[in-house]
Amino acid sequence: MRGLIVGRFQPLHKGHLAAIREAFSKCDDLIVVIGSAEDSHTERNPFTAGERFQMLISSLTPKERSRIFIVPIRDLNRFSLWVSHVESHLPPFDVVFSNSDLTRSLFAKAGYEVRHTKAYNPKDYSATEIRRRIASDEKWEHLVPGPVARMLESVDARQRLLDAGMKPVPSKGGGCRAR
Amino acid sequence: MRGLIVGRFQPLHKGHLAAIREAFSKCDDLIVVIGSAEDSHTERNPFTAGERFQMLISSLTPKERSRIFIVPIRDLNRFSLWVSHVESHLPPFDVVFSNSDLTRSLFAKAGYEVRHTKAYNPKDYSATEIRRRIASDEKWEHLVPGPVARMLESVDARQRLLDAGMKPVPSKGGGCRAR
Amino acid sequence: MRGLIVGRFQPLHKGHLAAIREAFSKCDDLIVVIGSAEDSHTERNPFTAGERFQMLISSLTPKERSRIFIVPIRDLNRFSLWVSHVESHLPPFDVVFSNSDLTRSLFAKAGYEVRHTKAYNPKDYSATEIRRRIASDEKWEHLVPGPVARMLESVDARQRLLDAGMKPVPSKGGGCRAR
Amino acid sequence: MRGLIVGRFQPLHKGHLAAIREAFSKCDDLIVVIGSAEDSHTERNPFTAGERFQMLISSLTPKERSRIFIVPIRDLNRFSLWVSHVESHLPPFDVVFSNSDLTRSLFAKAGYEVRHTKAYNPKDYSATEIRRRIASDEKWEHLVPGPVARMLESVDARQRLLDAGMKPVPSKGGGCRAR
Amino acid sequence: MRGLIVGRFQPLHKGHLAAIREAFSKCDDLIVVIGSAEDSHTERNPFTAGERFQMLISSLTPKERSRIFIVPIRDLNRFSLWVSHVESHLPPFDVVFSNSDLTRSLFAKAGYEVRHTKAYNPKDYSATEIRRRIASDEKWEHLVPGPVARMLESVDARQRLLDAGMKPVPSKGGGCRAR
Amino acid sequence: MRGLIVGRFQPLHKGHLAAIREAFSKCDDLIVVIGSAEDSHTERNPFTAGERFQMLISSLTPKERSRIFIVPIRDLNRFSLWVSHVESHLPPFDVVFSNSDLTRSLFAKAGYEVRHTKAYNPKDYSATEIRRRIASDEKWEHLVPGPVARMLESVDARQRLLDAGMKPVPSKGGGCRAR
Repeated sequence: MRGLIVGRFQPLHKGHLAAIREAFSKCDDLIVVIGSAEDSHTERNPFTAGERFQMLISSLTPKERSRIFIVPIRDLNRFSLWVSHVESHLPPFDVVFSNSDLTRSLFAKAGYEVRHTKAYNPKDYSATEIRRRIASDEKWEHLVPGPVARMLESVDARQRLLDAGMKPVPSKGGGCRAR
Repeated sequence: MRGLIVGRFQPLHKGHLAAIREAFSKCDDLIVVIGSAEDSHTERNPFTAGERFQMLISSLTPKERSRIFIVPIRDLNRFSLWVSHVESHLPPFDVVFSNSDLTRSLFAKAGYEVRHTKAYNPKDYSATEIRRRIASDEKWEHLVPGPVARMLESVDARQRLLDAGMKPVPSKGGGCRAR
Repeated sequence: MRGLIVGRFQPLHKGHLAAIREAFSKCDDLIVVIGSAEDSHTERNPFTAGERFQMLISSLTPKERSRIFIVPIRDLNRFSLWVSHVESHLPPFDVVFSNSDLTRSLFAKAGYEVRHTKAYNPKDYSATEIRRRIASDEKWEHLVPGPVARMLESVDARQRLLDAGMKPVPSKGGGCRAR
Repeated sequence: MRGLIVGRFQPLHKGHLAAIREAFSKCDDLIVVIGSAEDSHTERNPFTAGERFQMLISSLTPKERSRIFIVPIRDLNRFSLWVSHVESHLPPFDVVFSNSDLTRSLFAKAGYEVRHTKAYNPKDYSATEIRRRIASDEKWEHLVPGPVARMLESVDARQRLLDAGMKPVPSKGGGCRAR
Repeated sequence: MRGLIVGRFQPLHKGHLAAIREAFSKCDDLIVVIGSAEDSHTERNPFTAGERFQMLISSLTPKERSRIFIVPIRDLNRFSLWVSHVESHLPPFDVVFSNSDLTRSLFAKAGYEVRHTKAYNPKDYSATEIRRRIASDEKWEHLVPGPVARMLESVDARQRLLDAGMKPVPSKGGGCRAR
Repeated sequence: MRGLIVGRFQPLHKGHLAAIREAFSKCDDLIVVIGSAEDSHTERNPFTAGERFQMLISSLTPKERSRIFIVPIRDLNRFSLWVSHVESHLPPFDVVFSNSDLTRSLFAKAGYEVRHTKAYNPKDYSATEIRRRIASDEKWEHLVPGPVARMLESVDARQRLLDAGMKPVPSKGGGCRAR
């Protein structure tokens, strides 16, 4: 059985990785789609698909790498064509893992089995909160896999976010209890 | 060292596979880009990126699959942006394997090391010739890896090519001596 | 004389229908353009052009259907080309019915006669307010034509809006006095 | 039952009209899609969608006009998304009338009933041949409905074709026996 | 030496003109890119590239006009390709004048010398504030070059902004001390 | 009076320059549009807009440069919007100089005065023939302005054309009597 999981991974954090591993444990093969692949250098999508691809490679084990396919796919901004757009890029798959209502609804309508992943709580890991912390120079490194932390430092992620127009702001108290 | 090789794989044939293996033998990791990824159902690009992805997966060994990344990338039709477009989708790479003058020239201008692959002679293996043979109901199965032959039969490749407007035509004597 | 009226119809409500009928009463033929035709599954544009097309068909009388042309047109996001874009899709028309300042200004500059429709007060009928009510499970059915109400129920409009990211929120007191 | 028929109508000729009427005779409603709707002023697509819309309106009877929907749809140039693209613009339909192998194959794969129309022989009516005749100042008016002939004269169709780069050429003996 | 400076000029104000002149004083030739060239009639980009081109022409001296190239360039909305996109439109340039962090960062990464212009304080001149003043019927003419003021009046800039959806609002106290 | 002249300038030759000068002699200002601005590295459009921009700058006198505006504009591939697309990029102009039937027809329909330029005979100067000569290593330098010849050599124009897929072919006897 081949699974599909979609994320933007801006950046890849430990919650993403747990969800990928939960999905992978139930499949023979897993396709990890990097969504919004052509976007970068914005507040919401600061990192290129290539950088996010490298985050995934560096966080997977060799065994995982041999059965997980990483595929960047651009937004089409036409949700009525989204499933066909994704299908046209990928080898056949059987089940879609997603916690997004829209993704679940569109794939279910197209006849796919759709499952939740349970592994992470958005209160514990949130890419939005991690971006806020990076921009605000607060502690974030423990929320992402070690190789991702090193990579974000090497590309000067904080400057990237400031260049994209982010302002350092204090936490609103939500997100990432895992501190 | 990470290598990059680009092809359209319409369809994947034994010459492509030899070139991929030659490039892979010189690298730690290899990225195989499926070009013209959004095109399908035309004479020149009959198969979807997803079908071509499946051709590659089914023809690689498990060991190869663990160090080869398959990435579909759409045409941008702006050659002056082509290298940046490719880079934005991919983890860093060091060397580009290509026999196309334009690809070599664009990547060389952007500072990449560019190498030829020597493994196949376009007189022996040519996707254009294979498409002609499929449409014309001539022998073609020996020119592609076994799993690709089976897959092309299962999707009724001949009908696909006829639907796309191909006409059965006799060989012009060029291409694919490997008969 | 042939008239033109443009709307997004997200969803079609009784105010839209009154405006269409007011415009139609002054013309021999009327073109009803479904704007933002390629958008769907978003908060602002939840329904596909096809669904909106069906809303219009099901709300018009047979006589109206024989003299009203329904034409979905995508956004070009280039207002300086908007009139030419619309014209390129349509048979000739003489007068534009619109209450939008921008639409009126662009068509007037291109030499068209531009008229207001008077039939509905945005305080009585507002698609934005109807979407809010649907998402919030408040009474909305009386604001749209009967066939539209049935259709919205059959496509589970509330779930569509929640999938698109809408949150149930209480009324701000504006919109739709017609309660 | 609602049918769908697709054409480019460059220009609308008597064979098109017979096929539309054959399809309409088997349905309650018929959708006529004007394909390649954003193309015009080229050799292959000289007339705008709006002009082709007018050709259809002027050739249908009032009774036909009340049950036939004319919908211009642009090319997406992604055949794997074509059916979804068309569906997103249209109210639901049950059966597709087409003699194009690709159209038939794509709609059949998506689960639609697909039927041929038998009404016209491309040897009798061919838009390509009609364009050649117009450009070459040969007799063509009898091949199109009367209102289309008058309209083509009023827009100076011959000059349009020459502007688009067509050269007057003598017949190759194919096409349009109906002389 | 040839310099490059990028702006949206919505509208061109005296701060822009001072920055252009500062950059020009350090170069033999200067390219002035009109960014977001395909946008117009929106709150953020009310004026067409053509109108902004005219603002620049009318504000430069003949001597400046002979060594300053004005080039409208559309947004690509892909920042990772932005520098290549700009380069593909322009003759070679040596130095980029910009106060935008993102522009500076992208051009610096591509190997260009990047310099600040010092000439204007955004507190003194701000296009956002000028648009607010125009929409709100407050004094703005002294903030733009004379020919720009006249041109904005002749195209009825206030109506343009209202058409685009701007609402008259009182100043928030920021922007444009130069009152 | 401001004139407009459009060309692709692949490459700029002496016939183009004579036409530009003829047009300029009848105007106060002249806009020279570089068409197909986003295309490059193809047989038909080998040079980037930036390279073509530099060809123009280097061939004009300082006096001409102060009254001639060079503006690259991309193809929209929608001829029914072409005039609006061009207008949106440019300051107002009064007269269009063109020998292309389609360009003349589209601008005339939009209300512009349209004039022929008489200065060059396509039999004497033809960019198609010059590209053929460059690829075939025949004499071509005398057909272009001196600075263009030097520039084409410095970018290795022959290799550019071969990279784009051109094959050296002998003259068919047409084009460029000016040998």
